[in-house]
Amino acid sequence: MMLNLKSATNAAWARVAVEQLDVLLSDHAHCEKKAAAAAIAFINRYPMLPALVDAMTAHAREELDHLDRVHHVLRARNAAMIRDTADPYVNQLLAYVRRGEPAYQLDALICAALIEARSCERFQLLIDALPACEERRLFEELMPSEARHYAMFMHFARECSSAREAEARLEELSLLEAEIVRALPNEPRMHG
Amino acid sequence: MMLNLKSATNAAWARVAVEQLDVLLSDHAHCEKKAAAAAIAFINRYPMLPALVDAMTAHAREELDHLDRVHHVLRARNAAMIRDTADPYVNQLLAYVRRGEPAYQLDALICAALIEARSCERFQLLIDALPACEERRLFEELMPSEARHYAMFMHFARECSSAREAEARLEELSLLEAEIVRALPNEPRMHG
Repeated sequence: MMLNLKSATNAAWARVAVEQLDVLLSDHAHCEKKAAAAAIAFINRYPMLPALVDAMTAHAREELDHLDRVHHVLRARNAAMIRDTADPYVNQLLAYVRRGEPAYQLDALICAALIEARSCERFQLLIDALPACEERRLFEELMPSEARHYAMFMHFARECSSAREAEARLEELSLLEAEIVRALPNEPRMHG
Repeated sequence: MMLNLKSATNAAWARVAVEQLDVLLSDHAHCEKKAAAAAIAFINRYPMLPALVDAMTAHAREELDHLDRVHHVLRARNAAMIRDTADPYVNQLLAYVRRGEPAYQLDALICAALIEARSCERFQLLIDALPACEERRLFEELMPSEARHYAMFMHFARECSSAREAEARLEELSLLEAEIVRALPNEPRMHG
């Protein structure tokens, strides 16, 4: 299993997602939006850490570039984004983030890394489920970024604690993340 | 008075701001951060308006580019961002945004336009107060964007209502904005 994920997405998910591609793409655009907002929240919480501010600023810009590309594909399909709805996967995962520093920073960075890793896994499933088309090319183009983002978040997780502590907490959180994913319904959402 | 502003910033403000340039630059970086977050909030609220989504995505990316540039200047001064604090100017202005659509959209866009206009005025005051230096060059480079952003927000304000309604509401809100600015203390903040 790539990138430390400890469960595989249900094989039926990609079929459901591809059948309602407009809905999936809208959700994907909202995920990019929320990733940018989460990066800005890191800047807001840790403005005194220059390396983190630089990385999160670049990260937010990249996520907005992805939002723009997903939105472009959606418009080419004569579709538009629809309203965002709660993301039970992310909300359940973030409920495990411990309050109080330095635990909060470590956990928030590792959860962000795991969300990127899961997106990476799911992009591959969508690529496998789609014929050659503009939508598949989009996922092919975006997939390497997700793996890179995973590494970036884990770098800062190690920096704010230690390699050993970050790996130990990653082990715990990735087991919890795997449990959450096992219980997800098959919906046309990135985390559905 | 440029860009429909109905009061001029107190002449003493720029002197206070320039005397504590590290504090001012940190606040400026946070303003760019909040402008990006506000653009993302428009995407979140109006995902079904493709032209607005495109414009706000580009706008958020540009504000993050500005954040990056301000942060770079701050680091070159061997300084860092400090914690963000509440922005009484923005909070007082946004309190005039009417609840419920379509009034909310119109008011939120006009308030965003006015905040850009006020930043534009203040950049000019900082440019006038600073000797030739990297910090002055930064404000010189960023100032034209603020005027452009004012025009962009007013374009969407007219689009979501009518030219006449947008101008009438701009007249009301710019009078209220002018009152808020008259009462601001002279602090080393973009809206201080």
